[in-house]
Amino acid sequence: MQYDGTNYCGWQRQNELPTIQKALEEAASQLELQSIKAFAAGRTDAGVHAAGQVVHFDCSKRIPDNRWASAINGRLPSSIRVLEAVEVSLKWHACYSATNRRYRYTIYNGQSPNLFLTRWTWHRYQIRLDEKIMQDAVIGLIGSHDFAAFQKAGSKRLNSWTTIEDVQIKRNGDLISLEIQATGFLYGMVRLLMGQLIALGEKRLTINEFSNRWKKCLRSEVKESAPAKGLCLLKVGYEESAFSRSIVQDSMPEFLLSETDSPRKI
Amino acid sequence: MQYDGTNYCGWQRQNELPTIQKALEEAASQLELQSIKAFAAGRTDAGVHAAGQVVHFDCSKRIPDNRWASAINGRLPSSIRVLEAVEVSLKWHACYSATNRRYRYTIYNGQSPNLFLTRWTWHRYQIRLDEKIMQDAVIGLIGSHDFAAFQKAGSKRLNSWTTIEDVQIKRNGDLISLEIQATGFLYGMVRLLMGQLIALGEKRLTINEFSNRWKKCLRSEVKESAPAKGLCLLKVGYEESAFSRSIVQDSMPEFLLSETDSPRKI
Repeated sequence: MQYDGTNYCGWQRQNELPTIQKALEEAASQLELQSIKAFAAGRTDAGVHAAGQVVHFDCSKRIPDNRWASAINGRLPSSIRVLEAVEVSLKWHACYSATNRRYRYTIYNGQSPNLFLTRWTWHRYQIRLDEKIMQDAVIGLIGSHDFAAFQKAGSKRLNSWTTIEDVQIKRNGDLISLEIQATGFLYGMVRLLMGQLIALGEKRLTINEFSNRWKKCLRSEVKESAPAKGLCLLKVGYEESAFSRSIVQDSMPEFLLSETDSPRKI
Repeated sequence: MQYDGTNYCGWQRQNELPTIQKALEEAASQLELQSIKAFAAGRTDAGVHAAGQVVHFDCSKRIPDNRWASAINGRLPSSIRVLEAVEVSLKWHACYSATNRRYRYTIYNGQSPNLFLTRWTWHRYQIRLDEKIMQDAVIGLIGSHDFAAFQKAGSKRLNSWTTIEDVQIKRNGDLISLEIQATGFLYGMVRLLMGQLIALGEKRLTINEFSNRWKKCLRSEVKESAPAKGLCLLKVGYEESAFSRSIVQDSMPEFLLSETDSPRKI
């Protein structure tokens, strides 16, 4: 499923607050005529978007698979869309069967405001960010490490180790994106990492200081957290994908803007 | 300026209805402490967006040029942004001095819904559109012609001739865009043209029938008009641009989606 997280307090149910889980479970319960409890692959935070969230629940199969997505979309707010629904085995679990998650964080590094990007990107322009330094810094993150420096308080995890499988910084005109894939993510991890990368790109932090901070788990030196709106859960990996089509995992468009300095001649 | 046209009844004032002109004039009048009447290069229709609309008005220069954009943005709804403001000569006119306008129409031709695209594209999927036929058909439009076939009733224009300087159809995965540049556009022109191109791309119309319709000005045979939400006024051309930076005319991002059929391997 995909959602625009702007007006939700994240995935997880919190009493009467608007959350994705609450909206989905209410719509699914109406449809299946039974109380539905849903489990998600990634418990996204308030304001975070998803392009390829994966959710499972038990039900009595009142509606056939191939009609389920359009049936529930008719009961969901337009800010939440189910892209596909399939039957899975009883031992398959959206969260525990997942082998990795991939997130994208997008920064709009242009000087002027741009309302077409407001909802999905963080508009940050102090100086033009140096994306090469940012890319050099993230290379070292790949592998299995204790990332306690990038864990917000309030996590229920037993430890702060995880494995980063892939991480890339890309600039496209005034847009900069971080794509990061890991077996699992710590609470607040991508946004805390992004805060450090911005400091690097703005030359307020050196690569040595950055490496020192995370390698020595200096959580108290990691202060800035990038805003939720720039973050999107892009896709969830499984040993064997339950879905027939790739579209469910690649639905957040990348944005392309012409270079500010080189107007396109027409 | 740029705007999200979704909740506006177009550019032009219509008594108390929400229009871009009304919102801009009210904010500018507050700022300049005098009644402002604004003139736009393109009078966009209800629901149509703009990425590089150009507007002029007379005022007493209470606020310096370089502070004007941020000053008025503080008084405008977030769906309207002024990107840059400059002083021009008294004889310069946003509409009459313009030499051309460029529009982009974007279609999302994927099967699944995609909420990240909803606001800026028309979701149309009957079959996979044949963009090559669409491109072959539009080539003939270039030049000065009577485009009465693509003019909605209610226009105040004296005739329906205009000059198309450039027109292109581009496919990027499930997204198809039409970019069209002309000295001027007739009322409803791009959306009526797009309606015909969809019929071509869906093989309900041949290139010969299409050419016959517009060359013979068979307005009564041109029935479908594509919805406003897919359309955006991209840029306005002038002999000498009043603006220092190209950014004001290239602010609508292009969207990139991976191919449905070829999942990106990670």
